[in-house]
Amino acid sequence: MKTYLDCLPCFMNQIVRVGRLLKISETDCCAMLREFADDFAEIKLDDPPPKTSIKLYDMISRYSGVEDPFKEIKDESTKKALALYPELKQRVEEADSPLSLAAKFAVAGNVIDFGVASQFDLSAELDRVVDDGAFGKWLESDFFLALGGADWLLYLGDNTGETVMDRLFIETIVKETATPVTYIVREKPIINDAILADAVAAGIDQCAKIISSGCRAPGTVLDLCSPEFIDLFHNAPLIVSKGQGNFETLSEVKAPIFFFLKAKCQVVAEHLEVNLGDLVLTT
Amino acid sequence: MKTYLDCLPCFMNQIVRVGRLLKISETDCCAMLREFADDFAEIKLDDPPPKTSIKLYDMISRYSGVEDPFKEIKDESTKKALALYPELKQRVEEADSPLSLAAKFAVAGNVIDFGVASQFDLSAELDRVVDDGAFGKWLESDFFLALGGADWLLYLGDNTGETVMDRLFIETIVKETATPVTYIVREKPIINDAILADAVAAGIDQCAKIISSGCRAPGTVLDLCSPEFIDLFHNAPLIVSKGQGNFETLSEVKAPIFFFLKAKCQVVAEHLEVNLGDLVLTT
Repeated sequence: MKTYLDCLPCFMNQIVRVGRLLKISETDCCAMLREFADDFAEIKLDDPPPKTSIKLYDMISRYSGVEDPFKEIKDESTKKALALYPELKQRVEEADSPLSLAAKFAVAGNVIDFGVASQFDLSAELDRVVDDGAFGKWLESDFFLALGGADWLLYLGDNTGETVMDRLFIETIVKETATPVTYIVREKPIINDAILADAVAAGIDQCAKIISSGCRAPGTVLDLCSPEFIDLFHNAPLIVSKGQGNFETLSEVKAPIFFFLKAKCQVVAEHLEVNLGDLVLTT
Repeated sequence: MKTYLDCLPCFMNQIVRVGRLLKISETDCCAMLREFADDFAEIKLDDPPPKTSIKLYDMISRYSGVEDPFKEIKDESTKKALALYPELKQRVEEADSPLSLAAKFAVAGNVIDFGVASQFDLSAELDRVVDDGAFGKWLESDFFLALGGADWLLYLGDNTGETVMDRLFIETIVKETATPVTYIVREKPIINDAILADAVAAGIDQCAKIISSGCRAPGTVLDLCSPEFIDLFHNAPLIVSKGQGNFETLSEVKAPIFFFLKAKCQVVAEHLEVNLGDLVLTT
């Protein structure tokens, strides 16, 4: 997905919102806006927005003075999600279709995203999965058909905390289909996206192999990924891509990808032809 | 009122929203964002936001190719408001307190503002005046006391269309108190703010003397106003200031001003300590 006109002011809005969330002073937030504006002409509209986000969040990290300014927020997200995990697991095990319910919980978990909002209600989002109206597109049967024919699965993670719902989905896939899963994390901290330590904290190491994409963007920019990941990506018989960032960076790539995401901004919702806030499973 | 941190991305949002409203191409909207970003460092936080808006809307006019790109929109606003005028006038005449109801209609008319939104519902806003919950602060008795002691009134207009409700308020003031009114318009077209022709189209020339402030900003920046206006301003025994732009530029000026406005952005609402959307009459 290219960078839309609306994305340009949105970058500026993110600086203010995230700067305040991280308790960066108003003076420094203003300095960040000016620094970002100085390089505004360099933003390429042909790039997906997450590519521009690398520079933006590198700047925010620099002003915050720490490499992983979202660490506390991420740890809290994992803790809250793990507290819900036993109940969600029981509901999945007791469901008529455990795979279907686990897939829906996994996409509901995508609400945890500090790149697009500073507040959200995880429990309310998980409760929405029983409501068909929550789903914009939901190509579940296509995905399960593809899963039935795949000898392994590449699973591109997104946000920390959402990782716990990913774990439940992966555990269910392994239990129901015995398909081995490789789970992909970001190379370095960016926003609240999951890095290796975050995935391990969610317990994903207990059900999948975890590998970094080599990419620092809040998405999967193939020309910034490691050769090891590129090899996996091009050989994967089936790919689960979680979240907007992975969608924005991979929507035009020819590969057997199913995108699981919540449409959290108007630009992505319109691009997908769904309503803002919809839960989506699409190719 | 100074420029808040939130105002900086808001300028960028306005370029996109107003650019689209005026049917400026996406390519040109992008060029405007880049042009504005190039001069971002020059925005002075000590200035009120409407001072920065001069440059912004000059740029939008230039890209639109016409001096008054909102002319059609303004004419439509006047037409719609004039269609409501007979009913509003009758309601004011039949009210227990005609002055109070006319003041409330005048502030409800301030919803017509293409600088902060591209859509609004004038009729719904006018209907809200019977609901006390619509008013954040409403220092009506203070204003009427001051009006009782003033031998003339300086009335700073704001948006076109709102001018029709201003006319009804001024007619009611003249009828009830015989106080002469001087109505102030912007010097040149900016957004949908009323210039001389717009005030005349609303019929204000039938009840007040109309004079330009000499200022091109969507507000009243005293150091950009004409000597004639400055003289009126400093000698006025009582001043009605309509709208956010006049509030933002005059809130720190020592003068006998009553501000009539709808709090249409979060920054102004917080500055005034009212809720977003509240109708306000304050000093």
